[in-house]
Amino acid sequence: MSRFELVSKLLSFLPPEAVLYEMEDLKPYECDGLSAYRQAPMIVVLPQAEEEVIKILQICHATKTPVVARGAGTGLSGGALPHTEGILLSLAKLKHILEIDPITRTARVQPGVRNLAISEAAAPYGLYYAPDPSSQIACTIGGNVAENSGGVHCLKYGLTVHNILKLRVLTIDGQVYEIGSNALDSPGYDLLALMTGSEGMLGIVTEVTVKLIPKPEKAQLVMAAFDDIQKAADAVASIISSGIIPAGMEMMDKITIHAVEDFLHAGYDLDAAAILLCEADGMGEEVTGEIQKISAVMQDNGAVKISISRDEAERLRFWAGRKAAFPAAGRVSPDYYCMDGTIPRKHLAQVLHGIEILSAEYGLRCMNVFHAGDRNLHPLILYDANQPGELEKTEIFGAKILKMCIEAGGTITGEHGVGIEKLDQMCLQFTPTERNLFHAIKAAFDPDELLNPGKAIPALHRCAELGGMHVRHGEDRFPTIPRF
Amino acid sequence: MSRFELVSKLLSFLPPEAVLYEMEDLKPYECDGLSAYRQAPMIVVLPQAEEEVIKILQICHATKTPVVARGAGTGLSGGALPHTEGILLSLAKLKHILEIDPITRTARVQPGVRNLAISEAAAPYGLYYAPDPSSQIACTIGGNVAENSGGVHCLKYGLTVHNILKLRVLTIDGQVYEIGSNALDSPGYDLLALMTGSEGMLGIVTEVTVKLIPKPEKAQLVMAAFDDIQKAADAVASIISSGIIPAGMEMMDKITIHAVEDFLHAGYDLDAAAILLCEADGMGEEVTGEIQKISAVMQDNGAVKISISRDEAERLRFWAGRKAAFPAAGRVSPDYYCMDGTIPRKHLAQVLHGIEILSAEYGLRCMNVFHAGDRNLHPLILYDANQPGELEKTEIFGAKILKMCIEAGGTITGEHGVGIEKLDQMCLQFTPTERNLFHAIKAAFDPDELLNPGKAIPALHRCAELGGMHVRHGEDRFPTIPRF
Repeated sequence: MSRFELVSKLLSFLPPEAVLYEMEDLKPYECDGLSAYRQAPMIVVLPQAEEEVIKILQICHATKTPVVARGAGTGLSGGALPHTEGILLSLAKLKHILEIDPITRTARVQPGVRNLAISEAAAPYGLYYAPDPSSQIACTIGGNVAENSGGVHCLKYGLTVHNILKLRVLTIDGQVYEIGSNALDSPGYDLLALMTGSEGMLGIVTEVTVKLIPKPEKAQLVMAAFDDIQKAADAVASIISSGIIPAGMEMMDKITIHAVEDFLHAGYDLDAAAILLCEADGMGEEVTGEIQKISAVMQDNGAVKISISRDEAERLRFWAGRKAAFPAAGRVSPDYYCMDGTIPRKHLAQVLHGIEILSAEYGLRCMNVFHAGDRNLHPLILYDANQPGELEKTEIFGAKILKMCIEAGGTITGEHGVGIEKLDQMCLQFTPTERNLFHAIKAAFDPDELLNPGKAIPALHRCAELGGMHVRHGEDRFPTIPRF
Repeated sequence: MSRFELVSKLLSFLPPEAVLYEMEDLKPYECDGLSAYRQAPMIVVLPQAEEEVIKILQICHATKTPVVARGAGTGLSGGALPHTEGILLSLAKLKHILEIDPITRTARVQPGVRNLAISEAAAPYGLYYAPDPSSQIACTIGGNVAENSGGVHCLKYGLTVHNILKLRVLTIDGQVYEIGSNALDSPGYDLLALMTGSEGMLGIVTEVTVKLIPKPEKAQLVMAAFDDIQKAADAVASIISSGIIPAGMEMMDKITIHAVEDFLHAGYDLDAAAILLCEADGMGEEVTGEIQKISAVMQDNGAVKISISRDEAERLRFWAGRKAAFPAAGRVSPDYYCMDGTIPRKHLAQVLHGIEILSAEYGLRCMNVFHAGDRNLHPLILYDANQPGELEKTEIFGAKILKMCIEAGGTITGEHGVGIEKLDQMCLQFTPTERNLFHAIKAAFDPDELLNPGKAIPALHRCAELGGMHVRHGEDRFPTIPRF
């Protein structure tokens, strides 16, 4: 169907300001947080109510028009990249908090509600919503569900899937259904978990019921500096083995420490090869006990300097550097590319060493700042897009990091999703049997492939072609360094 | 294909003792823990290795023979009820613990390994596997995955799905794939959660990687007696609101208290209308603090008697009565029927009152013993199968309890699964849109419907017929008491 016909259909029930189709209006929707990929959609729609979304989907279904849902557009893997011949469905105006129930400790919210807004609304009851992606000021709960977002505190409090109870969902043809329950489990297949992290490929979420939890009485932070990254990695393993689950455990390497210290003066040790930030939260005594234990373990693993936050101001100051790592990268380099892989804890030092080797090989600096507790790496490759060939080199460097993660027994995404960015890596991560199952599941929900087509699950021929390019030496198809 | 031909095919690679087909050999496999439903399979196979399971599935797939997987047969919803024209695939001989890794705190085990055997093998490292269904001495991890089993401690430690990391699975045509990862999340759709609790309908699990956690330093139990069930229900709500997540929180009503006290002399207060058992575990000081807080909340909610376990022997004695509730029911009644529904916490007293009304209406006693913390009821309806009509009355009574759970905003199964038992209730719990999605997912994995056919997800015509029987007054199709 032509753009003109679609626009007419949409304008029959949507106000003019909710249907954008002029190129200048489409421009802001060309990309999400992965700005290396850009393309304008045919039309952007901004519905304000579920009934409008239903009608939009019915039109898309009837006319076989692709539809890409978008929250705040903060995603880092291009999951909300528009389809050039499709509708971009912004859910930003479905932004009402429908219910806060302090008794059952739940909030029922529309998908366009910002992550932080839920905690703000729950604050008068002493409650908050735990998952805290670094974009939490801007990102929306609908996007969090689509990507199964985590954050600094997910080591202790879990990902989005662990913190939601129910979803209200629309099928591609506009039927409403609800999944999940207020109980621990619900009968039938676990559609709640299936939908969470499915990157807008299986349905459109119109309501999310999240768990709220009590704000911890106290939070305290240990900052430890190490002269060797292996020692810091060992300290992470020892803390986890000691039975403590820290509220957060973050690591920064030397180049990151220098970049953020120059920027913010958080008091980081510039001689350190690595800094670990490890937080405990909970009831007062419990926190005191855990902080002592954490400090002792840091000491045992050879920390050269240990600081314990003395008050809330100091705790926030210690965190400030970590939280500003991305802007700090922006200060020391014209461009940076944020990777997102996970690895088993025991391979941490080895993978970091591998990244160092690649960094030298490609002549590109790489800042390592990551969720050490849940082994979720965020290497920031620093490059200059204006230097011919640097973006291409950066992408190859990044792809090699992800391959290394797979070979170490890890995964190609910890929390940013696959989107458009990591389709090739999905060919490496999963076998044909597994990818066939993904496609079969997609077909069960969306047989015409109208929901966010081309994302998250690579088409079979893509992997076949990629395999063809790489097959050189039989089984050893994707050699990289180091080997595990 | 005839039984004879199938047996010949199976005997071509399985030893004679692994292929059962004489009626007397099939007899022990006629039912699982839901003994009201019985039927013999055509053949029972007892493979010892994954390669054998693959060949069995290839035969089933090629000959379109239904296949029902079975662990220890302790399931309570008939999920392992054989198919009269199918193969019963016992996984009992795949019972090896393949790896215990105290560093990553994981165990990799075959599906026929008993739940408790995992904890026993992990004990030398101070670790254990948390989910503890009451059948844990006998039930196997494969069955736990199929049913997403819980247990007394799942309030704090989660269900099976929260305690497993990876599954190795066979498709119906015998292809192997692996799902999940050692990381918090993995890319692609969440097949791990989808498979867990899918009651053998989507694939055959041949390996499970579970999380192990450190044994708590200390566990202590508060036993509180109440003269009014509403007060006990309020105490449950208050404890949860206070921010404590007890390791377990169980409730027993008067008839249960009397039945178990007669049997075991656990020291329960025979005048009580309800007894709450509430356990705290963790580090020493933390437990002491929580126990004080729990006692205070019990007091505030009008407990008439509070006892705190003084040592491990007393803790186990307090638990003994709760753990013996089922055998105790067997002592006071020739037969009993164990239900399994969940309800929102705020409706606890109301639903228990509704059960009381139904109990009087049907002239059948009902013991209420349940996981109060996660609102998972296990009403035990006492009946005598030798009295004509009593089983039928019991089933109607049970169905009404489940309807009441749905109407209260709960679910028809907390941890026992749907199996063959609750197919009708699935028609009430889910809308046609939702049931269609379930069928589409089933078709994605098993288009010929060979894996455990007829279980868990009701056929569309079944719900249509059931709806026809019940439609009397428009929307008010399933009236029951009380209304919410």
